[in-house]
Amino acid sequence: MTDARFHPAAGEFDLAAIAASAGAELVSGDPSRRLRGVAPLNTADGGELAFAEGRRNLEALRATAAGAVVVAADQVAEVPEGVAVLRARSPQLAFARAAALFHPPQAPRPGIHPTAVIGEGCRIGEGCEIGPYAVIGRDVTLGARCILGPHVTVGDGCVFGDDCHLQAHASVAFCLAGNEVVLHPGARVGNEGFGFVPDEQGRFVTVPQLGRVILEDRVQVGANSCVDRGAAGDTVLGAGTRLDNLVMLGHNVRTGRGCIVVAQAGISGSTVLGDYVTVAAQAGLTGHLRIGTKARIGAQSGVMNDVPAGTDVLGSPSQPVRDAMRGYATLRKLAARKDVTDRTG
Amino acid sequence: MTDARFHPAAGEFDLAAIAASAGAELVSGDPSRRLRGVAPLNTADGGELAFAEGRRNLEALRATAAGAVVVAADQVAEVPEGVAVLRARSPQLAFARAAALFHPPQAPRPGIHPTAVIGEGCRIGEGCEIGPYAVIGRDVTLGARCILGPHVTVGDGCVFGDDCHLQAHASVAFCLAGNEVVLHPGARVGNEGFGFVPDEQGRFVTVPQLGRVILEDRVQVGANSCVDRGAAGDTVLGAGTRLDNLVMLGHNVRTGRGCIVVAQAGISGSTVLGDYVTVAAQAGLTGHLRIGTKARIGAQSGVMNDVPAGTDVLGSPSQPVRDAMRGYATLRKLAARKDVTDRTG
Amino acid sequence: MTDARFHPAAGEFDLAAIAASAGAELVSGDPSRRLRGVAPLNTADGGELAFAEGRRNLEALRATAAGAVVVAADQVAEVPEGVAVLRARSPQLAFARAAALFHPPQAPRPGIHPTAVIGEGCRIGEGCEIGPYAVIGRDVTLGARCILGPHVTVGDGCVFGDDCHLQAHASVAFCLAGNEVVLHPGARVGNEGFGFVPDEQGRFVTVPQLGRVILEDRVQVGANSCVDRGAAGDTVLGAGTRLDNLVMLGHNVRTGRGCIVVAQAGISGSTVLGDYVTVAAQAGLTGHLRIGTKARIGAQSGVMNDVPAGTDVLGSPSQPVRDAMRGYATLRKLAARKDVTDRTG
Repeated sequence: MTDARFHPAAGEFDLAAIAASAGAELVSGDPSRRLRGVAPLNTADGGELAFAEGRRNLEALRATAAGAVVVAADQVAEVPEGVAVLRARSPQLAFARAAALFHPPQAPRPGIHPTAVIGEGCRIGEGCEIGPYAVIGRDVTLGARCILGPHVTVGDGCVFGDDCHLQAHASVAFCLAGNEVVLHPGARVGNEGFGFVPDEQGRFVTVPQLGRVILEDRVQVGANSCVDRGAAGDTVLGAGTRLDNLVMLGHNVRTGRGCIVVAQAGISGSTVLGDYVTVAAQAGLTGHLRIGTKARIGAQSGVMNDVPAGTDVLGSPSQPVRDAMRGYATLRKLAARKDVTDRTG
Repeated sequence: MTDARFHPAAGEFDLAAIAASAGAELVSGDPSRRLRGVAPLNTADGGELAFAEGRRNLEALRATAAGAVVVAADQVAEVPEGVAVLRARSPQLAFARAAALFHPPQAPRPGIHPTAVIGEGCRIGEGCEIGPYAVIGRDVTLGARCILGPHVTVGDGCVFGDDCHLQAHASVAFCLAGNEVVLHPGARVGNEGFGFVPDEQGRFVTVPQLGRVILEDRVQVGANSCVDRGAAGDTVLGAGTRLDNLVMLGHNVRTGRGCIVVAQAGISGSTVLGDYVTVAAQAGLTGHLRIGTKARIGAQSGVMNDVPAGTDVLGSPSQPVRDAMRGYATLRKLAARKDVTDRTG
Repeated sequence: MTDARFHPAAGEFDLAAIAASAGAELVSGDPSRRLRGVAPLNTADGGELAFAEGRRNLEALRATAAGAVVVAADQVAEVPEGVAVLRARSPQLAFARAAALFHPPQAPRPGIHPTAVIGEGCRIGEGCEIGPYAVIGRDVTLGARCILGPHVTVGDGCVFGDDCHLQAHASVAFCLAGNEVVLHPGARVGNEGFGFVPDEQGRFVTVPQLGRVILEDRVQVGANSCVDRGAAGDTVLGAGTRLDNLVMLGHNVRTGRGCIVVAQAGISGSTVLGDYVTVAAQAGLTGHLRIGTKARIGAQSGVMNDVPAGTDVLGSPSQPVRDAMRGYATLRKLAARKDVTDRTG
């Protein structure tokens, strides 16, 4: 399935190496048997590794023609004869790691393209790749092995750690970033926040936005997403937080570690998320809220109040999921009742 | 009305040529009479063509000072004396075609700007225009007469057919595209999908996204819209599908022919649309759904279940339109009833 | 708090100068006392100016260690001893002006970067700064002191007034703009509207989009926001109107003076907003509506009907705020009533 024009494999690897990379145990199959890639269960051939997890793919597992599969302990017995078996607690995690053995993240091709414009006082780490038409301001620091794609712009004074990847057309300013930070294409980081006051004639006067954006280690900002800098103080994305595409984060938003914000969701200014909060697609949070650790905000929710830790909310305005669901069901029932709809019709 | 600085006409054309282009029949007026452009009914002068369709513009039609109008058969009698009449089954279609006679789509000015960076092994078709600061990777194929605007980036191995138009700042990677494909400014195609798994410590491990994006003939991707590539296998936009601006399509979404996705709508991973599906503005579809042919998803709908062919749905969570409407009406009535609101107040 | 790497102060200023800039009255404190910047109440030190407004920050005001504070008349007595007091009708406005004294908007560094591509017939005003890799078409006019950031593209024939700021990666075409217009990073202005008609075979035929975008004085378009040009006639943003990030405006939308459109909101084609209309985040307006002066559209609202002047609406579909709130409350009560939910369960 994998198109080698776009995703050439790093090589062939034997099952012993694959198991080691995957953090899985090879429970059946010849450790020296070599595979050339990964594929889904239903399309993998004898040279490819697949994985199964849960009941959903059980039929596909029983019918697979893969060379090897990663499964959890309770599905080892379901694997067809002749297919090598790797056992892992999280088959998807093991598969992701094995896939990265065949298809490692893009490595930098060290060098600075002659068209890149680099300001005075910059410190570019060892092994960085700076693409064509990148524009880097003054006094910018890049750690080792960073990749800046074509047309990336980095404002004066920004600092990035090691192994960061700023993809094509990303722009960033007023930002301090850790290691392994990824900005996807067209991401806009460090923009001026939406802060202004009407004057005596009703004209808007901009409130100078004097803060920064802090991106901790392993933060990812999706394609065409926007993260405004703090108005005073910082906008902060905690370690490992991932924003999907077209997400909006206002000034002085703070997320904890490992938060997930799915596509087209938005968080207004000064709202603070605990660790491991999930904000599903197209949800919106107003400003100055506190969202507790491991809370989950459902898709398209409109959140106007604090959410306690560990709570799932849904709806616009949002409620605890159970209440929102009961509300939907109640309205459906009432709408179907003649006595309710007729009496005041 | 039309500002010739921005939209110069290709020339003057006589009514015979206009009727031929429009696919309309000239039912009154001198075929050799020349017009110089198009305009709305209420602003067109004697040198311009306008159109009317349906009842909405009937007064404007009766009062128009246009040189000629396109109307359907049932409105021919409404055209003021002295105004030439073209008759067409779909006046708007005929008008669009006539307008394109005066204002054809931008033609390529063949040539490669000296600042364009083009990788090894590329095949650039005849008559292509490659704009300033375009960056094209290795082994890219462009068909004939493609236009790449300024700052467009095309990743290694991409293939585009004939007459494609990649507008300013568009970026594309991991993509195979047909003929007449249009990427509007800032469109992001082929991004890494939002796929990752927590490891033993809760850190997110990226699942390598090993698929592609297939854009069939005449697909258009709107300004700043995002189309992620497949995780395994392809994200596919069927022939003629048009995405408006700021639309989000997740990995492995597939649309049929002629689908319409309006601004700020989003479709999550692996959802499949049949032919001629319409997704209105700001609607959201969760992943792994099947939306049947000619289904229509209303604006701001939240779709969490499959939608049968030919069905219109609305609301979040979405219901068949009639049910959603009844629900809204029911709630409005109940909220107005003292006995309901007081009894448990 | 303020990081001088990113936000160096223009200098130190004495309280007399600060009061003059702020439009505030110095009611206590030595006019010659010099401050070096601004900060929030709770972090400001003796060299910094802070402000308080309303009850929310009263405790912080009473405890502040700032060198001076701006307050309204009724809070002068709350300022701790030793802290200089500036009195203003709108403390936030006065603070914004004082902050701009220390941190004025970026001034142009006059000059055209050697990599900028500028078409024939352009008129570039005095004192403009044109950044690296900017691409300006033919016959473009820029007023005095405009700043074009890196990678900005300006289409043929565009006109901008004085003191405009087109930030990194913004693209604009078919546009006439006044003075002090700001396009934030990645803003897309003048895109082709989403207009097409199915032909006899169901293929979409583009309706040529022959209008322009008019940006009146002081308009701001947020990061990655999209403003399509008119289909015929113009898309118009009235003086002082501000769009936040990821906003979508369809063809022929018109806003009055001083409108505010918050992040991820969208307005469909031909809808007209009066003066000082606010559209909150993620709201959506269908096309061809009239929204009256000073109407306010709540977050995530879905507006399908005209809204009278001065009216606040909320919900999807939207209602007057009071009705929407009553509806939410009614549904919550009904969902909690056993007799309603059981009877038809």
